[in-house]
Amino acid sequence: MPHPPSDLAEVRALAFDVFGTVVDWRSSVIREGEALGAARGLAVDWAAFADAWRAGYAPAMNRVRHGELPWTRLDDLHRMTLDNLLERFGIAEALDEADRAHFNRVWHRLDPWPDSVNGLTRLRRGYILTTLSNGNVSLLVNMAKRAGLPWDCVLSAELAGHYKRDPEAYRMVTRLLDLPPKRIMMVAAHQDDLQAAHREGFRTAFVKRPLEHGPDATPDLSVDPCFDRVAEDFHDLADQLGLPEGPRP
Amino acid sequence: MPHPPSDLAEVRALAFDVFGTVVDWRSSVIREGEALGAARGLAVDWAAFADAWRAGYAPAMNRVRHGELPWTRLDDLHRMTLDNLLERFGIAEALDEADRAHFNRVWHRLDPWPDSVNGLTRLRRGYILTTLSNGNVSLLVNMAKRAGLPWDCVLSAELAGHYKRDPEAYRMVTRLLDLPPKRIMMVAAHQDDLQAAHREGFRTAFVKRPLEHGPDATPDLSVDPCFDRVAEDFHDLADQLGLPEGPRP
Repeated sequence: MPHPPSDLAEVRALAFDVFGTVVDWRSSVIREGEALGAARGLAVDWAAFADAWRAGYAPAMNRVRHGELPWTRLDDLHRMTLDNLLERFGIAEALDEADRAHFNRVWHRLDPWPDSVNGLTRLRRGYILTTLSNGNVSLLVNMAKRAGLPWDCVLSAELAGHYKRDPEAYRMVTRLLDLPPKRIMMVAAHQDDLQAAHREGFRTAFVKRPLEHGPDATPDLSVDPCFDRVAEDFHDLADQLGLPEGPRP
Repeated sequence: MPHPPSDLAEVRALAFDVFGTVVDWRSSVIREGEALGAARGLAVDWAAFADAWRAGYAPAMNRVRHGELPWTRLDDLHRMTLDNLLERFGIAEALDEADRAHFNRVWHRLDPWPDSVNGLTRLRRGYILTTLSNGNVSLLVNMAKRAGLPWDCVLSAELAGHYKRDPEAYRMVTRLLDLPPKRIMMVAAHQDDLQAAHREGFRTAFVKRPLEHGPDATPDLSVDPCFDRVAEDFHDLADQLGLPEGPRP
């Protein structure tokens, strides 16, 4: 396939959702939880803990989105949720402030999906690659540094003062990259993120991440007709965009 | 020398001035001016033109800094100065809107100094590398993409709504990287930039760029006692920070 495909010839930048789309948050949180549990002698179902932490994400952001909280960056929302969960799982007494502060930053240390680094490296040959994540800038920078994610630019809801799916988050990208929305393609594993980007005039690519919620989950992988591309992973997306081959995981 | 040196052991991020420190704006503007002049049959002293364009930079930013203009990104300030200069150099009639728009974006296409890409690549092994430039985000992203500048993060005065040397520009970096100022070292070829960073509590490295204003200029290379390091180029800085050797230009 030639690069670029004719219907996407105007696209110049790809904007990536990160949690779940680029990195496997669930396995990473479980891994660090298990290590922490072993070190402190805690009997905890860390898969349930990871799922509960993530389940607190949307409600916490909604408190900001609906004005119940002033702008609060994701690190601080994660910490509020973490402190509640430590109580709920009965381990609040076992973890001191240093433990909590370190564990809260596990979201800075998430591992990429196996195709992410090589797939992004291929995509970067044809496009500006930016994040468009609800993670704060420092979280995204630290994650990229550790995982080797080859971003050209780290953009965050923090820079808009609005979390996705608020339209202001998408408009921040068009403003800062100085590109009209039709020249930016949102890449995400979540339908509502792509639908919100589509409403702002972005192009969209749905990347399926069937393991985001673990091997036993049955995630919604349905395709909205508004999606411009549907891909199995970042290599499949690079293939569809006509980019040269590169090393695969 | 071990990495990191003991007096800078806390430094985690390097924040770089860009115009003059990382890229050679003058030679790049002259090069493109000469090409444009040849294409349009214009007799212009492009070195004088480049110097005049750059000389318009501080006064234009000061109009924003003093509230005479609302926040205006550097691309637009460059364009205001360019339109004035085309009149002053008597070539306004010869350049249409497409020529002007393209030439204005020469600031997105500046060439790095010979040591910049390899030197930054070495420094990146030890530190988070961010820009802290008055250039707008899209300018810095396009420049990095073209020149291969290996930033971890692209931060700009645009994100603060304040141009350097306003303190808000430096505080934006500490806020977004979530690091105290003493853990960030400003790297610049300009004393006043480093002095302003020092006032905010940053560490500072002065990198001499004696050719910034051309081979006939006699730039101020004086060293302020507030500078933590003084370097001849980015390889010298990497040496002083105890980083491993890498390919030199």
